Amino acid sequence: MPLPQQQTGQQTGQHPLHPEFHAIAERVNNWGRWGEADELGTLNLITDEVVRAAAATVATGRRVPLALPLQQDGVQTGMIPGRVNPLHTMTQINDEVFGPGALAVSDDVVTMGLQAATHWDALPHVSHSGRIYNGRSADTVTARAGARFSGIGTIPYLVSRGVLLDVARAKGLDRLAPDDAVTPEDLDEAAEFGRVAVAPGDVVLVRTGQIGRYLGGDRHGYGFPSPGLSVRTPEWFHARDVAAVANDTLTFEIIPPEIDGLWLPVHALHLVEMGMIQGQNWNLETLSAVCAQEERYSFLLCAMPEPFTGGTGTPVAPVAVF
Amino acid sequence: MPLPQQQTGQQTGQHPLHPEFHAIAERVNNWGRWGEADELGTLNLITDEVVRAAAATVATGRRVPLALPLQQDGVQTGMIPGRVNPLHTMTQINDEVFGPGALAVSDDVVTMGLQAATHWDALPHVSHSGRIYNGRSADTVTARAGARFSGIGTIPYLVSRGVLLDVARAKGLDRLAPDDAVTPEDLDEAAEFGRVAVAPGDVVLVRTGQIGRYLGGDRHGYGFPSPGLSVRTPEWFHARDVAAVANDTLTFEIIPPEIDGLWLPVHALHLVEMGMIQGQNWNLETLSAVCAQEERYSFLLCAMPEPFTGGTGTPVAPVAVF
Amino acid sequence: MPLPQQQTGQQTGQHPLHPEFHAIAERVNNWGRWGEADELGTLNLITDEVVRAAAATVATGRRVPLALPLQQDGVQTGMIPGRVNPLHTMTQINDEVFGPGALAVSDDVVTMGLQAATHWDALPHVSHSGRIYNGRSADTVTARAGARFSGIGTIPYLVSRGVLLDVARAKGLDRLAPDDAVTPEDLDEAAEFGRVAVAPGDVVLVRTGQIGRYLGGDRHGYGFPSPGLSVRTPEWFHARDVAAVANDTLTFEIIPPEIDGLWLPVHALHLVEMGMIQGQNWNLETLSAVCAQEERYSFLLCAMPEPFTGGTGTPVAPVAVF
Amino acid sequence: MPLPQQQTGQQTGQHPLHPEFHAIAERVNNWGRWGEADELGTLNLITDEVVRAAAATVATGRRVPLALPLQQDGVQTGMIPGRVNPLHTMTQINDEVFGPGALAVSDDVVTMGLQAATHWDALPHVSHSGRIYNGRSADTVTARAGARFSGIGTIPYLVSRGVLLDVARAKGLDRLAPDDAVTPEDLDEAAEFGRVAVAPGDVVLVRTGQIGRYLGGDRHGYGFPSPGLSVRTPEWFHARDVAAVANDTLTFEIIPPEIDGLWLPVHALHLVEMGMIQGQNWNLETLSAVCAQEERYSFLLCAMPEPFTGGTGTPVAPVAVF
Repeated sequence: MPLPQQQTGQQTGQHPLHPEFHAIAERVNNWGRWGEADELGTLNLITDEVVRAAAATVATGRRVPLALPLQQDGVQTGMIPGRVNPLHTMTQINDEVFGPGALAVSDDVVTMGLQAATHWDALPHVSHSGRIYNGRSADTVTARAGARFSGIGTIPYLVSRGVLLDVARAKGLDRLAPDDAVTPEDLDEAAEFGRVAVAPGDVVLVRTGQIGRYLGGDRHGYGFPSPGLSVRTPEWFHARDVAAVANDTLTFEIIPPEIDGLWLPVHALHLVEMGMIQGQNWNLETLSAVCAQEERYSFLLCAMPEPFTGGTGTPVAPVAVF
Repeated sequence: MPLPQQQTGQQTGQHPLHPEFHAIAERVNNWGRWGEADELGTLNLITDEVVRAAAATVATGRRVPLALPLQQDGVQTGMIPGRVNPLHTMTQINDEVFGPGALAVSDDVVTMGLQAATHWDALPHVSHSGRIYNGRSADTVTARAGARFSGIGTIPYLVSRGVLLDVARAKGLDRLAPDDAVTPEDLDEAAEFGRVAVAPGDVVLVRTGQIGRYLGGDRHGYGFPSPGLSVRTPEWFHARDVAAVANDTLTFEIIPPEIDGLWLPVHALHLVEMGMIQGQNWNLETLSAVCAQEERYSFLLCAMPEPFTGGTGTPVAPVAVF
Repeated sequence: MPLPQQQTGQQTGQHPLHPEFHAIAERVNNWGRWGEADELGTLNLITDEVVRAAAATVATGRRVPLALPLQQDGVQTGMIPGRVNPLHTMTQINDEVFGPGALAVSDDVVTMGLQAATHWDALPHVSHSGRIYNGRSADTVTARAGARFSGIGTIPYLVSRGVLLDVARAKGLDRLAPDDAVTPEDLDEAAEFGRVAVAPGDVVLVRTGQIGRYLGGDRHGYGFPSPGLSVRTPEWFHARDVAAVANDTLTFEIIPPEIDGLWLPVHALHLVEMGMIQGQNWNLETLSAVCAQEERYSFLLCAMPEPFTGGTGTPVAPVAVF
Repeated sequence: MPLPQQQTGQQTGQHPLHPEFHAIAERVNNWGRWGEADELGTLNLITDEVVRAAAATVATGRRVPLALPLQQDGVQTGMIPGRVNPLHTMTQINDEVFGPGALAVSDDVVTMGLQAATHWDALPHVSHSGRIYNGRSADTVTARAGARFSGIGTIPYLVSRGVLLDVARAKGLDRLAPDDAVTPEDLDEAAEFGRVAVAPGDVVLVRTGQIGRYLGGDRHGYGFPSPGLSVRTPEWFHARDVAAVANDTLTFEIIPPEIDGLWLPVHALHLVEMGMIQGQNWNLETLSAVCAQEERYSFLLCAMPEPFTGGTGTPVAPVAVF
């Protein structure tokens, strides 16, 4: 149940966004739905029962990993300032720490953007009109502490049923065109193609095939312009009580945007209004092939955030289990 | 099947370790067992069948997280040079990247030791006598590329049955004393206490209760001295074809060591000889309570490494599903 | 010429500081003195003429370095969150980047707090009552860009006459006691001891001897409690048109503070009100011995900030030339 | 005095470099010249007398900075793996660390390649034939400690006379062509143009104008291909007992190289054979204009390395004083 209108984001900001945005926002808003103190949003929809049912879908034990390697030659190109690819260095290499003749230790350290590779966005990754999820002030994100509310470290676990909506394969394409917005109709088509019904608590993976550009060596072509979710899809996810959504693009949603001047509206709808985390740069290529082969588009999905206190994102190494 | 004796580690180094170490090493060595090209070691024991059976144990859908928060105030004290606690900073805070009135973005970056918090050690984390797992030269770990073989990024997934051997609770203790080595007999006792039989492909979690010191605010007392696995336990794990072992201490094995001058022998036996990854700083306190309550000491365990190319370790956010 | 009273800091904040602070602030305020657009503050006092005269003092060519080594085992203890000691790692070690037989390259990378070791504070390092130097809003410091005004990168050069006021030696002490505030009278005494008159544009180095604690191995005793400048010294520096001040403590000023509840008032007076940068953790031990030996307490001082765009501090490797 | 022939680099390696390299190496080798224990090389040539004379050249007090800003948008393009542009983030922004109403603190942290921007190469930055300067083993560079000998932190100070050899201006060019090697004859021509004689202990700055490409926005064109020093210039510097050389290119020497397959020979001659540090990415554009205007090509130069223990390089913020 959404909060009364006067508490939703559109009233608090000085610069209202596009009217269509606010109209959708009102329809999908989840503020207060799980209480005023809630920090988890739609992850509340992953109940014990959902997890039990998800585990029950495991039939073969086959596993498919969905993360890109974490390395300097990653998907970031410098387009997003400060979002640096992982820089991995050794602090010790075969160091005989206990003296000559003892065993030797190698240790390492990394510097990386939390949103640099295959990742989850935490809810406070985006604010609009001065608000983050559940109506909290955006000022609760600070340099010293990061996100005081709904930081990635507040998510204790993320195991559920995963559903692949293979939009590209459903259309018989290797990948969508850069200016293809994934619409609610596309999602319906992909669900029908996969003979799968999205249910409450599901984590939905939407495949555009765009990551094939990066895997093929075209880092710049991968990021921009890019196909992605349409501003009309949040209502589709909201209607089905989806717990989280991830896809295989850098920007998640179509970019440049559908409505002139309205950048990243899907981020604002998912993260701020619905309180639904979202994932980017997921490698769904092998999963697409396996789903087609297994003729199954649902599976047990483990996709644990790393619990960074105050983090607005996290690398994740998801695994689908069939 | 181990390689012929002349190819095992003890022959190649200039400074042989203690004779007892080499005697055990010979008995647990797995070099060549999964082929000369193998980089995964005992993770090969987690077959589709094992995963299928693990998923079948899920009865309630209850989940228990096992990771410590990733934050500056972590378990590292400076004792291990370069193994720095996570330093999390914001690269953007509510930045209106697309101009005033648009939505605002917060992004972050982290610098951390890969072994700083709840983590897996990759096989090349340790070498002895100039060798890492499967007899490869320790020189294959370099500053530029990290570990060329068996780096943490070579592990595609890690989902299996988890088994808690709650050594502390089986003895009726909150935690073991700092000079308590966990012996094979202790593992038997804990398995009996939990009415659970360790099977091939299991990931075994051994609880000493030591992490309670850190959780209680005593960072220095947590690390050293510490209870931990005895040099005699690798044979116990080897005999049962365990896939991986993790516990709730900084050093994994008892420190100072049981045999004078023989530091970290369990590391060398697990990582180098057996090719078995191991985990440290796992928070098993809640798990202990839940297992006691549910009267079940086995569960589905998701414990995915982050795929750092060349990494000798990785943070991990494990989840037990009941 | 200071701005009219109503434009100084004390009027703009919601929580006025101690009345004594505001009384001093009014007397030392330099806002507007070098124009509304000024970002450099008292560094404007280092004119070509000052530099020329400073160079003319060089008599022997003897040089004395004043920086601590940059290393993990530095002065930081974790007391100041996020101010991490330098973590230096190699990205390449003797890497034959152009193929076997070619020459080999070693490269390295560092992560460090800009205020971690021997450093300069930039003016926006501190704000009070919502203002930084020259009356600008403290909100001009952001996560994305750092300090938009008076960042350390705006300082093009820092060469001037240096003057050592060796307060400890003037009193015949190895070092001051932890609760010794350095007063204007102490500065006068040290100037007389060194037979040196502080002149406009000088960089004044004040020696307490406190860094001897760190050099002797006592990292915690070095930082807190600590002797340091009294809240009454900014007026002394102001009256003499000093360009910058540095000393050999972690906190610069006496800590705990002289006035109950008024923490770091000297920071606020120097950085915000006067627009005068200040330096900490300068190793003045050798300089003290050389000045005594040479019977000279002034010298040419090179103390260039590293030009971090938006930085609120910088490591510095100062050199005194006699 | 060079060491006997059998101790120089060319005998020890398995893969001798091009014969011309070894012929030059023999003529410029300084191993043993300042004793077997020496770690400083040609910086020994900067005596008190040299510094005194350098200070005496100061006539006007005018200062010219020579460093590029330290920022994400720096000269690195990813061409050199791991050599990352500075990533500057805030750990605190106006944080009221001592409670509401107290003054507020902003602090920051940086991650950067030590050779990323305007920098000095330390002597062990390069090895050839298994050796670094003074015949030490290249294996003395390790992951844990960095460079054990001649690391950048061993250089206590660097103040001397600077001489600009403005090769581009002497030829009437804005900048050299990408395939222009700077020859000894070019250096003679530039010295004559500037009516300056290079003397022992001088730090020579060689201007190609190439950095104008970066300053004009062409980061990729700046790095490669690039004009730079010819393999014949080390003998010119050696004959004049130059203390250090820096220029305004990414690679220092011409790249691709003059002799097919012989990459970075000038690095090996300067750093390994002569023990002479070298600087890259120095912005000499303003200096060029000032020298022309002042009709003086020598000045006091302050160019202090930051004292990273074990560092093979360092950012530097050099200043020329006229």
